[in-house]
Amino acid sequence: MDFVRTRAQQALIERAAAVAREALAPRAGEYDRMGGYPWESWHDLWQQGFLAVAVPTAYGGLGLDMPSYVMVLEQLAQGCTSTTMTLHMHSVVQMYIDVLGTPAQKTRFYPEVVEEGKLFGSWGSEPDRRGGASVGGTVIAPLDGGYVIDGEKHFCTMAGAAHRYMVHCAMDGLASPYNLQLALVPHDHPGLKITGEWDTLGMRATVSPSVTLSACDVPGDALLGRPGESLASGVGLAFGLGYAAIYVGVAQRALDFTIHFCKTHRFEPDPQSRAHDPIVQHRVAEMVMALEGARLVLYQSAGGWPEADAVQRAVLAARAKYMATEAALMVTSRTVQIVGGRSAHRRYPVERLFRDVRTATLMPPSGDRALELIGKATLDVRDHGLLARHAG
Amino acid sequence: MDFVRTRAQQALIERAAAVAREALAPRAGEYDRMGGYPWESWHDLWQQGFLAVAVPTAYGGLGLDMPSYVMVLEQLAQGCTSTTMTLHMHSVVQMYIDVLGTPAQKTRFYPEVVEEGKLFGSWGSEPDRRGGASVGGTVIAPLDGGYVIDGEKHFCTMAGAAHRYMVHCAMDGLASPYNLQLALVPHDHPGLKITGEWDTLGMRATVSPSVTLSACDVPGDALLGRPGESLASGVGLAFGLGYAAIYVGVAQRALDFTIHFCKTHRFEPDPQSRAHDPIVQHRVAEMVMALEGARLVLYQSAGGWPEADAVQRAVLAARAKYMATEAALMVTSRTVQIVGGRSAHRRYPVERLFRDVRTATLMPPSGDRALELIGKATLDVRDHGLLARHAG
Amino acid sequence: MDFVRTRAQQALIERAAAVAREALAPRAGEYDRMGGYPWESWHDLWQQGFLAVAVPTAYGGLGLDMPSYVMVLEQLAQGCTSTTMTLHMHSVVQMYIDVLGTPAQKTRFYPEVVEEGKLFGSWGSEPDRRGGASVGGTVIAPLDGGYVIDGEKHFCTMAGAAHRYMVHCAMDGLASPYNLQLALVPHDHPGLKITGEWDTLGMRATVSPSVTLSACDVPGDALLGRPGESLASGVGLAFGLGYAAIYVGVAQRALDFTIHFCKTHRFEPDPQSRAHDPIVQHRVAEMVMALEGARLVLYQSAGGWPEADAVQRAVLAARAKYMATEAALMVTSRTVQIVGGRSAHRRYPVERLFRDVRTATLMPPSGDRALELIGKATLDVRDHGLLARHAG
Amino acid sequence: MDFVRTRAQQALIERAAAVAREALAPRAGEYDRMGGYPWESWHDLWQQGFLAVAVPTAYGGLGLDMPSYVMVLEQLAQGCTSTTMTLHMHSVVQMYIDVLGTPAQKTRFYPEVVEEGKLFGSWGSEPDRRGGASVGGTVIAPLDGGYVIDGEKHFCTMAGAAHRYMVHCAMDGLASPYNLQLALVPHDHPGLKITGEWDTLGMRATVSPSVTLSACDVPGDALLGRPGESLASGVGLAFGLGYAAIYVGVAQRALDFTIHFCKTHRFEPDPQSRAHDPIVQHRVAEMVMALEGARLVLYQSAGGWPEADAVQRAVLAARAKYMATEAALMVTSRTVQIVGGRSAHRRYPVERLFRDVRTATLMPPSGDRALELIGKATLDVRDHGLLARHAG
Repeated sequence: MDFVRTRAQQALIERAAAVAREALAPRAGEYDRMGGYPWESWHDLWQQGFLAVAVPTAYGGLGLDMPSYVMVLEQLAQGCTSTTMTLHMHSVVQMYIDVLGTPAQKTRFYPEVVEEGKLFGSWGSEPDRRGGASVGGTVIAPLDGGYVIDGEKHFCTMAGAAHRYMVHCAMDGLASPYNLQLALVPHDHPGLKITGEWDTLGMRATVSPSVTLSACDVPGDALLGRPGESLASGVGLAFGLGYAAIYVGVAQRALDFTIHFCKTHRFEPDPQSRAHDPIVQHRVAEMVMALEGARLVLYQSAGGWPEADAVQRAVLAARAKYMATEAALMVTSRTVQIVGGRSAHRRYPVERLFRDVRTATLMPPSGDRALELIGKATLDVRDHGLLARHAG
Repeated sequence: MDFVRTRAQQALIERAAAVAREALAPRAGEYDRMGGYPWESWHDLWQQGFLAVAVPTAYGGLGLDMPSYVMVLEQLAQGCTSTTMTLHMHSVVQMYIDVLGTPAQKTRFYPEVVEEGKLFGSWGSEPDRRGGASVGGTVIAPLDGGYVIDGEKHFCTMAGAAHRYMVHCAMDGLASPYNLQLALVPHDHPGLKITGEWDTLGMRATVSPSVTLSACDVPGDALLGRPGESLASGVGLAFGLGYAAIYVGVAQRALDFTIHFCKTHRFEPDPQSRAHDPIVQHRVAEMVMALEGARLVLYQSAGGWPEADAVQRAVLAARAKYMATEAALMVTSRTVQIVGGRSAHRRYPVERLFRDVRTATLMPPSGDRALELIGKATLDVRDHGLLARHAG
Repeated sequence: MDFVRTRAQQALIERAAAVAREALAPRAGEYDRMGGYPWESWHDLWQQGFLAVAVPTAYGGLGLDMPSYVMVLEQLAQGCTSTTMTLHMHSVVQMYIDVLGTPAQKTRFYPEVVEEGKLFGSWGSEPDRRGGASVGGTVIAPLDGGYVIDGEKHFCTMAGAAHRYMVHCAMDGLASPYNLQLALVPHDHPGLKITGEWDTLGMRATVSPSVTLSACDVPGDALLGRPGESLASGVGLAFGLGYAAIYVGVAQRALDFTIHFCKTHRFEPDPQSRAHDPIVQHRVAEMVMALEGARLVLYQSAGGWPEADAVQRAVLAARAKYMATEAALMVTSRTVQIVGGRSAHRRYPVERLFRDVRTATLMPPSGDRALELIGKATLDVRDHGLLARHAG
Repeated sequence: MDFVRTRAQQALIERAAAVAREALAPRAGEYDRMGGYPWESWHDLWQQGFLAVAVPTAYGGLGLDMPSYVMVLEQLAQGCTSTTMTLHMHSVVQMYIDVLGTPAQKTRFYPEVVEEGKLFGSWGSEPDRRGGASVGGTVIAPLDGGYVIDGEKHFCTMAGAAHRYMVHCAMDGLASPYNLQLALVPHDHPGLKITGEWDTLGMRATVSPSVTLSACDVPGDALLGRPGESLASGVGLAFGLGYAAIYVGVAQRALDFTIHFCKTHRFEPDPQSRAHDPIVQHRVAEMVMALEGARLVLYQSAGGWPEADAVQRAVLAARAKYMATEAALMVTSRTVQIVGGRSAHRRYPVERLFRDVRTATLMPPSGDRALELIGKATLDVRDHGLLARHAG
């Protein structure tokens, strides 16, 4: 009656843990300091197959199911938050291609990932629009047999680094609240212009500035599905679920640091290590249990994913994200508290994990929005616009 | 990757839910009011086979594994806290007989349960001794080929109602901290004297007064195992795990009441039912998630039970009990808050659930002791007396 | 820069503390058990002058200012919750008479309190109406030079015991949301009929059943002020402030019990009293500080009362009540936790304090409503119906 | 019955608020970014008289009492955390000179502050020694009619920038746990060597690297008081009290930002500003009340300061610091949550306030140590080493 892992999952987890420990972790501090892209870590992820974690096996990817996918994210996040955040966003684009893409699109896009190690970004946020509200002011309109996109996007992760950007648009002239049209824009399109900088508290190596799209023309086969299909597919709700996995992973890294610190440090005039302080034991136990509760809810949500429709997935993701958000904020802040003064120094990873979690937990849906979703589902309160506002 | 239930477990849960709803729940309020034994509900439990839930199948019982056992408790507790608490204590005695009993003892005691519907109590607590500290001032000494017990016990659940009482004793002359000797004393022994009353906040129908044992002679075959064996067996740690299951069940009952109340009540000048209040949605969602985290940790602990040794079981039980304690206290207090003024009336079940949870969560190990256990296990701090103090 | 008490306040506090300790406390358990009126304690309050705590000195009362008044309630509540709750409700009626009453009314009503020791009740709640929503379905209409009242009231504290009841009515034919008309109905009016019972979690000696008012005719001089005046006066907001004082007092009683218990109890195998357990020290310190924060906010609100208008008083009361509610729920639940198993016994006061606080904190405004008031005031969000819904 | 401010205090607060707003705030972001000393802001503090806030009026300073002092810190902290932290440490040195200094020392040191605008640092922390444990491994020994200091100090705020450093030493050969000897070392002493860097999460402009003191000879009049006098004086406990004032100030700055943000921002598809979201109203109200509770306890502690002995001051400071720590961590983290994605950007002050609070709250005594102090005082548990370990 536990979450039993298959042998394949276990092997995968060990491989991800090794990559996190050996490839991602040693560079995470420097990427954070510079606020630059994790090129070397992306390259390693590609070499280890993780860039194709969500690409179907038929196209040379790992084609992981959702439980395996969140377990991989959880492991990688223990190495580098920013690298894993970008991998996750890239992977949800691959999931969209799998569900909405035509055979021709798959044949075209997947090899870019599998063989060339290219990354795909996903741009949804807009100024003055609530986080997670997908259908916004960026409009796509038919033009000369193709389409043209105009608008402004915020938090454009991997702007200038990814190969293609999946832009969340509204199809011109459609009034539906589910009017979300996804379109893939190549990185070298002259209509793209990076307009903002990226100097932030955490998630610094995701480099997510603002971007304007001006008369950005794309051919018809740049579009994924038709308007409304993407929301109905429920694919985008994996954003929130994956964030939860990443918070759990980063918090686990902080907890492990705390445990190691307490076992190996003694301060005058205490007779024994910090681990022997009854208060420390309590604090650590509270961290352990908050994180364990979040992890089990995460696994439960991932386990229920395949059979869930879009509305149910919104709740599953909200449950996982709420629990992981609360646990990770608590665990990383407590880690700073227990480790004490030295945790403030940048030469230890603690303060970075603390900054990363506080930043990454801002990704939609917010904790309050997640509670709203869970509460309405529990109380059978229908909210027709809910899905549209929480597509990720 | 979810906690998958077997078909047999599912059938069992449904049967327990039906008994809770149809037999236990209608009488729970009256038992609470009178502070009397739940004779009729015990009878129904016997008729439905649940009195033998922990009796091996070879002896005519259900012989449930730990995951199935906690699921049954969780369901029954939704009907009546006190009835389920007593069933649980009775059942742990059956587990002890299974592990420590001789074939002759099993042949003698099990039919009393299976065929006659008799109950077995377990008396551990003592005055001026910390909750859960098993080895205390009640001493058993050899005498004339048999044994004699002298001491005082508190919180003697089912005193005067059960058929036999499993008394926690220290074997005279042994100095080991693990010197716990269990002995079964028949209910009609003249050496037993009920000395205290039972008029309490909650768990009122468990009727757990104080009892003195004076020159209480028992034959050699009244003893279960030898001194130390019971602690080493790890059986008694099931007390804490079962309590956790009961808290989860009672809290679920309160949560269900809250949900139903909010969906069916509207107050002037609100335009819609309470379920449409954004704050109510948030509060209910927080209750749902706290309880879900506790439930998943409970299932995880039950799943790991068979392979765990005594020390590991102490931690598994502590994890489940800590989470369930926190969640159940929060959920039942919030239920009172959300339902409002009418929840204070005894004609609604809410205030009883609230009292039962605050009382039942006092059973050892306390939340703070549970955190100590978890913290020490996490930090690899050995505590040789730990097990002796937490045998339940 | 502390809340400095005048010498007069200090003397008053000491007198109230003595009454609480010597007269109220010894009877509180029995009143709770029987669910009967605290006649003897009311009598003692009268003898000590506290029944006239809010009657102006010109009419023979103590005429206390708000800071002194909440200090007195805080002390008395340490003796008996129910007695102090009824005293407080009675006293707010005296405050209403002071502000809205004519000289003739004062000359008539005040001596009933001062000389005869009579009590005045206040009935506001109605079925299917949100707590604290004053203007409801109980209607007062002109008839034959006087008035007639019809309606149904819930939570009619002191029904059958007080001398007069201040009934919250809506004046027939007026559409204003501020249409609150107070009227004093004598206890022996044949139109009053007690329709519900009072068997509750806590506050049992307040005896607050439901009452129907049928063709309940009263003369014109039974009315206090004109429709709307009572809400505009801001007097009724003292209900919430006084509740806060009572919660603080009851929680202080629980905290004192906890401290005394920890200092005087040692359990095997601990070497020293509970007071030496580092975890207990932390838990107690958290209780102390939560309560101290609530007490200081209470004093701050009482200090600002005289100069505040009705809307500001709603916020002052909400601040005090929110803090006191959270602190008292925490302190009394923790008291049960720390004292452990014996706290469940009715022979100790702990479980009663726990039940009283959980019940008394349901009085309007609820914690969530209080937060709404504070939040809107902080964010300058106007809510025209706010006052009408929170008149107490 | 409120904390009434004198007219002089009110004028002072307004002056401090103006300096914070006009001089400190505009530079705070840049100081943080560079991790460099706030020279210009120190200069402005000097010009405005605040560098002599704790210098007696007889020597040309403001000579503020403790309530006025914490109010000034609370205001200045709203402008720049690091500047106010350094001002506070400098000021506690002035308090020490006032209490322990000889007339000759005062005549010598105070003019350096008042006339020349010099700063004094205070170095207490040591490696492998618990935060706040004053008596450590830095030893001062008599030599040739003067003294010589050897040791290593951590978190040496203003190293290289202040004029003199008050070094916490143990007098060679004395075994008392109260063996704390303060000595003022000039900044240009060749025995001082900065050995560590300062690149931290927050409080970046306090620049607090490690420093070794090697054969650092000082004349006899560099010593403040005799061994033990400094601890007995209770002066150093003002460190903790002042930190609390600073946390309250920084949290107020964050809260004000949140309120302004919510009132001025509307996001699609919401019909009104964030201020109209019921959940936002609740969250903001919780922030307001947590901060208000902390502020009132701070004022209460400051008010009780003059009459309190050293042990009592330890508790007063612990109360203020615990409440302020909890409130400030909550308020700044919630601010990030409510403001959302943009709060992560360095061009807004929010993320800096968040980092500063998480860092500054690590100053001793920690939250857990503060609870220990409060708990022991409440439970009358004597701890003879307590004061020595919490001198600040």
